[in-house]
Amino acid sequence: MAVIVQKYGGTSVGSLARIEAVADNIVETRRKGHQVVVVLSAMAGETNRLLSLATSIDKQPATRELDMLLASAEQVSISLLTIALIKRGFSAISLLAHQIGIHTDNSFGRARIKSVSSKRLLQALEQEQVVVVAGFQGQDDDQNVTTLGRGGSDTSAIAVAVALSAAECQIFTDVDGIYSADPRIEPLAHKIENIAFNEMLVMASLGAKVLQNRAVEYAMRHNMPIRVLSSFEPGQGTKVMNEDVLVAETKNLNPVTNIAHQKLEALVEIEGVEDHHTIASMFTLLGEAGIEIDMITCTLLNCCKYNVKFSVSRDNISQIDDILQKMTQKNGIRAIQYNDKVVKLSAVGIGMKSHSGIAGQFFTALTEENIKILLISTSEINISVLVDESFLTQGVLCLHRALCKTSDISH
Amino acid sequence: MAVIVQKYGGTSVGSLARIEAVADNIVETRRKGHQVVVVLSAMAGETNRLLSLATSIDKQPATRELDMLLASAEQVSISLLTIALIKRGFSAISLLAHQIGIHTDNSFGRARIKSVSSKRLLQALEQEQVVVVAGFQGQDDDQNVTTLGRGGSDTSAIAVAVALSAAECQIFTDVDGIYSADPRIEPLAHKIENIAFNEMLVMASLGAKVLQNRAVEYAMRHNMPIRVLSSFEPGQGTKVMNEDVLVAETKNLNPVTNIAHQKLEALVEIEGVEDHHTIASMFTLLGEAGIEIDMITCTLLNCCKYNVKFSVSRDNISQIDDILQKMTQKNGIRAIQYNDKVVKLSAVGIGMKSHSGIAGQFFTALTEENIKILLISTSEINISVLVDESFLTQGVLCLHRALCKTSDISH
Repeated sequence: MAVIVQKYGGTSVGSLARIEAVADNIVETRRKGHQVVVVLSAMAGETNRLLSLATSIDKQPATRELDMLLASAEQVSISLLTIALIKRGFSAISLLAHQIGIHTDNSFGRARIKSVSSKRLLQALEQEQVVVVAGFQGQDDDQNVTTLGRGGSDTSAIAVAVALSAAECQIFTDVDGIYSADPRIEPLAHKIENIAFNEMLVMASLGAKVLQNRAVEYAMRHNMPIRVLSSFEPGQGTKVMNEDVLVAETKNLNPVTNIAHQKLEALVEIEGVEDHHTIASMFTLLGEAGIEIDMITCTLLNCCKYNVKFSVSRDNISQIDDILQKMTQKNGIRAIQYNDKVVKLSAVGIGMKSHSGIAGQFFTALTEENIKILLISTSEINISVLVDESFLTQGVLCLHRALCKTSDISH
Repeated sequence: MAVIVQKYGGTSVGSLARIEAVADNIVETRRKGHQVVVVLSAMAGETNRLLSLATSIDKQPATRELDMLLASAEQVSISLLTIALIKRGFSAISLLAHQIGIHTDNSFGRARIKSVSSKRLLQALEQEQVVVVAGFQGQDDDQNVTTLGRGGSDTSAIAVAVALSAAECQIFTDVDGIYSADPRIEPLAHKIENIAFNEMLVMASLGAKVLQNRAVEYAMRHNMPIRVLSSFEPGQGTKVMNEDVLVAETKNLNPVTNIAHQKLEALVEIEGVEDHHTIASMFTLLGEAGIEIDMITCTLLNCCKYNVKFSVSRDNISQIDDILQKMTQKNGIRAIQYNDKVVKLSAVGIGMKSHSGIAGQFFTALTEENIKILLISTSEINISVLVDESFLTQGVLCLHRALCKTSDISH
């Protein structure tokens, strides 16, 4: 009898009717003979409601107190679900983070899990109870309530699954799996059956919001398979798993798994930077301001000056300009240009490691459509380009059709 | 520097504006040089909102889970108040029951406090923090969340005050103190400055809803003075205190402190009960059904049968009739009569112990107004009668004017 951890997000428990549906779903898993540990988020909208109460008192509420406040929302969802399970004749118990020993550091609002004790969880499972655990929350060394940040319930679920050596961690959400491209853009996009942890990580960094990055890292580090499922319709979803196992199990590995895109990007171009010390201090200052730099290129000009280009999220532009204008006065930067009408297109796939010629196919596909490339970055398992935002749909379609052959779905 | 415990009820923290007002009130106490520990209820309406969520899933929700659910509401009020205090530049910390060690038994929904640890509280006070404690909740030996029942925050506050040997426990509520009679009935009713614990207990059993009975018992057992204050207007309120201290401090002790009344009473009259075994089994059955019997008289008739009269809360009548009808068939009870148009009037006062003749004055006052007495009960510090409900106002007025001399206010 396997232990299955099931995590349900905010929309999955967003109303009493949804909570009843989740209870039915759990009962079904239980009837199949599995032991079930459930990890819940707050009911959709509750965290934001509480946050707005706090910010009406203080725009920047004390972080320890904010965690105390927000953690109350999961306490509501777990007890309501447990009441629904008990009403269905099942033995069930809700448990808070401190009750099962989810220990974190004390970075309020974005705490990291240090350890999860399995003692109380195992005790409940031995008593044939369905255990319903509050996601998103933890306890630091001083018994303070902490929260793991937005989407932290995914990490809670993985951590609980790891502590119990569960068969897999099922993440129920409002999509039925991971697709080879956004189906709203590419009608031929297909659901991916299996995907590697590192592909999922790259996709998350490219804006895929299905799983929290930290959760995938945690699962990858402890080799805990994740299954992304819809809580609204049946299906096998997408399994996120160890790369080696995936490669060994897959006969014809498709070199490209997914065509990702990210809107609301911006390109910053700086001409005539004096020397590489200036470049270093520029990126240091931007980093200290909390700005995440994505793709970077740096060209040495004949005159011993540099041209630097980088991409950022569009809403950072005014903050970046403040910082760069101050530097310009000191370092004689010639010109700064901003292009906030760009998007990023990416091809992701662990198969790229072993297949040569993917870059060639990638650029050929774009060139045939006359799509001009503004910036390029590559890694072992992905190629990304920045293009004008008018090319978004055209770019996704041509890349998906050239690289993600649906006839060849192996994973 | 004295430690003051302040408890604010649900209406006192019923909105963000009210929470801000409570924060101002605490800041004022702090500025006077006192150390302050605050105990809060849930924001008014929140407990009922959560309860209705639970009962829409299951009419009789699992009690452990219901406690888990309801306790979340205090977590919200304490963190919001603490955010408001910190915004005012004060060091403050919110703490849940398990964090300070409020240990209870495991009677979910009506748990009793077994002990309160002072360690974490003292640690916070040493760091000059205002401590904001979640009322109403506790933790049992298995780390389960428990709640103390309606009004349980009063008990939480007293228990915390006792653990810290506080100077007094201030209960902020929507009334500005305890009155010698209901001011809505008797315009000459005056606010009582000091009242004894046992008087307060009798008054609570007579329907006074200002303080929870358990809280007063806890305070009396540990000799912790309570001060009932309004959170809406300034004033000294009413101090509830040790009887001996009160008597020693008071020059002219008024024999009667308060004229109480209780509406919605009913009188049950049973004629021709066979023997005292039947009476015993009757009260046992009623007790097992959870019905609280108040005043009882029992008259032995010539024919060796008994007439039994007792008073109960009016909404128990149909349940009582079900039980008695079954008994009638077996025990040949001759007749059962219900009078659900009665009220109870009482005079309460520790001074009655040392003043003779109070009973005489009490009955004279009622007789002069031609108020017929249906049932009587007395104790060392109170006389109660059941009368027709049409005499409510007239009865309160004549008793208050005869027994609670305002010219003689000593306590």
